[in-house]
Amino acid sequence: MSNRDYACPSSAMNVESVQRVVIPPPKPFIESFKHSMKETLFQDDPLKKFKNQPTSKRFVLALQYFFPILEWAPHYTLQFLKSDLIAGITIASLAIPQGISYAKLANLPPILGLYSSVIPPIIYAMMGSSRDVAVGTVAVGSLLIGSILSREVNPNENPTLYLHLAFTATFCAGLLQLSLGLFRLGFIVDFLSHAAIVGFMGGAATVVCLQQLKAIFGLQHFTRESDVVSVLRSVFTQTSQWRWETAVLGFCFLFYLFLARYFSKRKPKLFWVSAMAPLTCVILGSLLVYFTHAEKHGVQVIGKLKKGINPPSAADLVFVSPYLGIAIKTGFITGIIALAEGIAVGRSFAMCKNYYIDGNKEMLAMGTMNIFGSLTSCYLTTAPFSRTAVNYNAGCKTAASNLVMSIAVMLTLLFLTPLFYYTPLVVLASIIVSAMLGLIDFQAAIHLWKIDKFDFLVCLSAYFGVVFGSVEIGLGIAVSLSLLRLLLFVARPKTFVLGNIPNSAAYRNVEHYPNAHNIPGILILEIDAPIYFANSSYLRERITRWIDEEEERIKEAGQTSLQYVIVDMTAVANIDTSGISMLEEFKKSVDRKGIQLVLVNTGSEVTKKLNKSKFLDEIGHKWVYVTVEEAVGVCSYMIHTHKSNPMRDESEGLNSV
Amino acid sequence: MSNRDYACPSSAMNVESVQRVVIPPPKPFIESFKHSMKETLFQDDPLKKFKNQPTSKRFVLALQYFFPILEWAPHYTLQFLKSDLIAGITIASLAIPQGISYAKLANLPPILGLYSSVIPPIIYAMMGSSRDVAVGTVAVGSLLIGSILSREVNPNENPTLYLHLAFTATFCAGLLQLSLGLFRLGFIVDFLSHAAIVGFMGGAATVVCLQQLKAIFGLQHFTRESDVVSVLRSVFTQTSQWRWETAVLGFCFLFYLFLARYFSKRKPKLFWVSAMAPLTCVILGSLLVYFTHAEKHGVQVIGKLKKGINPPSAADLVFVSPYLGIAIKTGFITGIIALAEGIAVGRSFAMCKNYYIDGNKEMLAMGTMNIFGSLTSCYLTTAPFSRTAVNYNAGCKTAASNLVMSIAVMLTLLFLTPLFYYTPLVVLASIIVSAMLGLIDFQAAIHLWKIDKFDFLVCLSAYFGVVFGSVEIGLGIAVSLSLLRLLLFVARPKTFVLGNIPNSAAYRNVEHYPNAHNIPGILILEIDAPIYFANSSYLRERITRWIDEEEERIKEAGQTSLQYVIVDMTAVANIDTSGISMLEEFKKSVDRKGIQLVLVNTGSEVTKKLNKSKFLDEIGHKWVYVTVEEAVGVCSYMIHTHKSNPMRDESEGLNSV
Repeated sequence: MSNRDYACPSSAMNVESVQRVVIPPPKPFIESFKHSMKETLFQDDPLKKFKNQPTSKRFVLALQYFFPILEWAPHYTLQFLKSDLIAGITIASLAIPQGISYAKLANLPPILGLYSSVIPPIIYAMMGSSRDVAVGTVAVGSLLIGSILSREVNPNENPTLYLHLAFTATFCAGLLQLSLGLFRLGFIVDFLSHAAIVGFMGGAATVVCLQQLKAIFGLQHFTRESDVVSVLRSVFTQTSQWRWETAVLGFCFLFYLFLARYFSKRKPKLFWVSAMAPLTCVILGSLLVYFTHAEKHGVQVIGKLKKGINPPSAADLVFVSPYLGIAIKTGFITGIIALAEGIAVGRSFAMCKNYYIDGNKEMLAMGTMNIFGSLTSCYLTTAPFSRTAVNYNAGCKTAASNLVMSIAVMLTLLFLTPLFYYTPLVVLASIIVSAMLGLIDFQAAIHLWKIDKFDFLVCLSAYFGVVFGSVEIGLGIAVSLSLLRLLLFVARPKTFVLGNIPNSAAYRNVEHYPNAHNIPGILILEIDAPIYFANSSYLRERITRWIDEEEERIKEAGQTSLQYVIVDMTAVANIDTSGISMLEEFKKSVDRKGIQLVLVNTGSEVTKKLNKSKFLDEIGHKWVYVTVEEAVGVCSYMIHTHKSNPMRDESEGLNSV
Repeated sequence: MSNRDYACPSSAMNVESVQRVVIPPPKPFIESFKHSMKETLFQDDPLKKFKNQPTSKRFVLALQYFFPILEWAPHYTLQFLKSDLIAGITIASLAIPQGISYAKLANLPPILGLYSSVIPPIIYAMMGSSRDVAVGTVAVGSLLIGSILSREVNPNENPTLYLHLAFTATFCAGLLQLSLGLFRLGFIVDFLSHAAIVGFMGGAATVVCLQQLKAIFGLQHFTRESDVVSVLRSVFTQTSQWRWETAVLGFCFLFYLFLARYFSKRKPKLFWVSAMAPLTCVILGSLLVYFTHAEKHGVQVIGKLKKGINPPSAADLVFVSPYLGIAIKTGFITGIIALAEGIAVGRSFAMCKNYYIDGNKEMLAMGTMNIFGSLTSCYLTTAPFSRTAVNYNAGCKTAASNLVMSIAVMLTLLFLTPLFYYTPLVVLASIIVSAMLGLIDFQAAIHLWKIDKFDFLVCLSAYFGVVFGSVEIGLGIAVSLSLLRLLLFVARPKTFVLGNIPNSAAYRNVEHYPNAHNIPGILILEIDAPIYFANSSYLRERITRWIDEEEERIKEAGQTSLQYVIVDMTAVANIDTSGISMLEEFKKSVDRKGIQLVLVNTGSEVTKKLNKSKFLDEIGHKWVYVTVEEAVGVCSYMIHTHKSNPMRDESEGLNSV
């Protein structure tokens, strides 16, 4: 390599005018603390609107913040009402059979599924910031409540206690959701990565489908475990108990539901075929049983449903140990999962209509609706994907469609409950299975594999954790793996050698840009993470190895010996005291080899800390440059003017101490 | 601002020749997996030495890896032996009283402290890679074993079981340390940050000192809790039981010990005054009791010590539940703490002599010594700071000083144990207190406060957690806070606006460089962390806010409207699928505003993933530049030649979909 083809000549000449990193102006501790709190918790600056407003206006704005209905109701038109009416009635027709099915999944009385579609939607309509979300109970949440609670209290032996625990758990979930929203801790939900949710939902859907084998084969006894091994063993050890009548009925309805969905997918205008299909199944199934008296031949039916709207349940909440502990645990797990699902669903549909929903506001709405729900005989509700999708396709305009659904379900409760007497359980099972199979998202899993292997691993472990272990095990594995990834990123940051890209002043990773070439006598390194306690020993070892390898290479090639190590700190966002100690040690060890350490582009936070800890004095302010180009310019100027390295004597002095 | 004073004119002219980020060559999955495993676990490339060597040489190298004694023994000289002899005898004189004291701290028979200075030092001498470490029991480890085990088994009521549990816990600790070394998982120790260790050690030292009040005031009954409130209550509710004789004795010895240390610190040549002081105390104290028969006046003494070297204890290990669980828990906690302390001590002294010790090798050595120790009546050993410091000051040359100490202690066990019969416990208490007060490092805490407030918080919470709660609570708080910091870094990355530094092509944070100025019509942002699930929603909100604020500012100032957002991705080391979705959403939302998104310097990992997920096609390869300078050059060229933004039509097209 000739001596001419590196570095910008202008900067190499003009060594004295090169820019050094400045030390940012000091900030009082209180001020920087306030700033970082604001950036951590109020990143969207929610109080911006309130600035420079009179008190009365501020009050209105605050009311509108908590009750978005006050924002949209004044502009509500007849056209909107028409759309919302249609959408509301459509989702009610889906809500009734789904509600009953999911309540069975949670081992709760079927009527609770209907109750849960009355109060929470009203509250969401007032407080929710999404225009498309339709509120109701969800399969995964119901399954979670069922599996956690029934491990502690047997729902068949002690149904009242079980019911009261479900209300208490819902109350706790609501309280958690509300406080997360109030304290703006919504980012906790973000720790459930997309990959984890895909795997977890798929696993939960598989488990829910497997549970339906009980109803489809008309079995009386069934395992209380949810893992695939127990369930299949339970099904296949009872082959003699299988009822062909229910199985045939089940598969017919499943076929019908799939067909309806297929048509709706092919022609989105026919969305109502799919939306109405569950209710059609319920009606057809009930008529069939009524006329054939199949309930006397082993086809299980829902039976009597109590007439009347939600009774109050505030007095039923159990706040005594040991039950309170169980309720809190159940509430916290289900509350977080329900939030994650609800917010994800809300955001996806908001994306389609190009508006934005505020996660913290949604938490307030969902928290409040679950708290009020738990006081009025409802259990955990959130935004179910299927119901929201139907609402969206039915052309809903505002959250008023939830009000319409609520009224429709109320009317059903008041007048139509006797009609469900003959509804066979197997129809409900088919409805659940057809809804669940849509949640197993193979496409998403393949996408994860293609783009990010680690995300795929997270997804897969969540899936198998749920299917072979339990819902909580799957969740635990997924969250731990996701966190491990974050920790691993900090613990094992990337470091690379930079080289000069020909005909440019840029210095980039030589592995990424194979045409980038190195500069004789200078090693340029980049560190790709903050330097923290978790990675400082690693970084010292890894950087030392880079230097050793470079020295070996130089020796073999017989080139200019290594005189400067330039560390590009652009990506080092922060440093802690362990990191500073590491830099001090590293400085000493390169000094001993007669190599000068040069830093480039230390960020404001890092510069401040290096200055306070006197490291900048140690290394010399003149060895901290703004750009790699300038640092290289100075260093190669030094090498080529045969100016001896000023550090060499100092370092020898140090050595003899 | 005039239109002339921004961006390098040469790049603005030569728009067509601007460099784009290249897509790095694809790597098969297996290869990249192997590479990342190597970087994660073998960062120091330990197999490098083995390359291109014949099998026999490889075998020798492997032996030398596991037994560093084979490396240094062949070059051992008589001069070395002389130095090691002196150092070994000096540390033995410290080891004997310290060993007895610390065993009392762990509620174990005093003789165990002597046993523990026999076998482990021999093994360390063969396997350890440090030349300065002197092996033995430590105060914090002893306290931990004492406090965790005695919560489960009362050492007074069931001393045999308690003893056996201590051996089993030591065995488990050794096994853990050995496996961490074998599987190269040493980085787990790195998660105990320096700040956490400072606080934790200070807290433990405080607690240990408080425990000594029992012996100093000659109390018979004492609380089994270790927190400051219980201990002080226990001391001050028994004022009638205080023995002035022991208190006077204790304070005299303490005064003597501090005096000795003061002299040694003033004149490092007199290190032996301080090193011998504990033994002198023991001899003086024993003589005093022997002649005054103070043991009959309430001064408690050690009593009879069994003669003879370590009996085997392999048969004593308890591998049955529930005791195994306790032993594993104790072993894991103490094993990690002992490792952290031992490696930190070893590294600090290696630094002084300019050599480097390998953490993984140290783990192998410490693990093996604890396993063998547990089989020969020793309990948890590591590298105590005080003993190592004395060893270093006494001029040790190799790990052979450990062998000398071991032989000296062995001789004591064989012939001199009766001499300890009259040693008063209060002398041991003084020895512990004087050793412990050195561990409370105010200087370090002040340093932390000055440089890094969060580190100080970690340190303080660890201290108060230990002092007011328990050792485990303190440890738990410290580790959780340290991890929280890492997670917070990823969850809330910094973003800033970049501006052009005058007379330079560099673009830097405008808050750090107040003279950096912005470019009309262009907003340049930098993201300071990888884009992961944990921060993708935050980043979308924060970046959107930057754009909104910039647009507002422009509107107020009546400047060129915003047409380009350049995102500098230099510090974005990685991205996951959630991050890519966020970028896709973000791209759509800026498209809607008619703003073109431009990326700069995407790293090789990020470029690969963006390419695979088709995001690069979406944004257009030509909008991904290598440097901010070039991106700004092209964008401002476009703005100034009044070339309409090519995206504008497309985005309008998108909007109407």
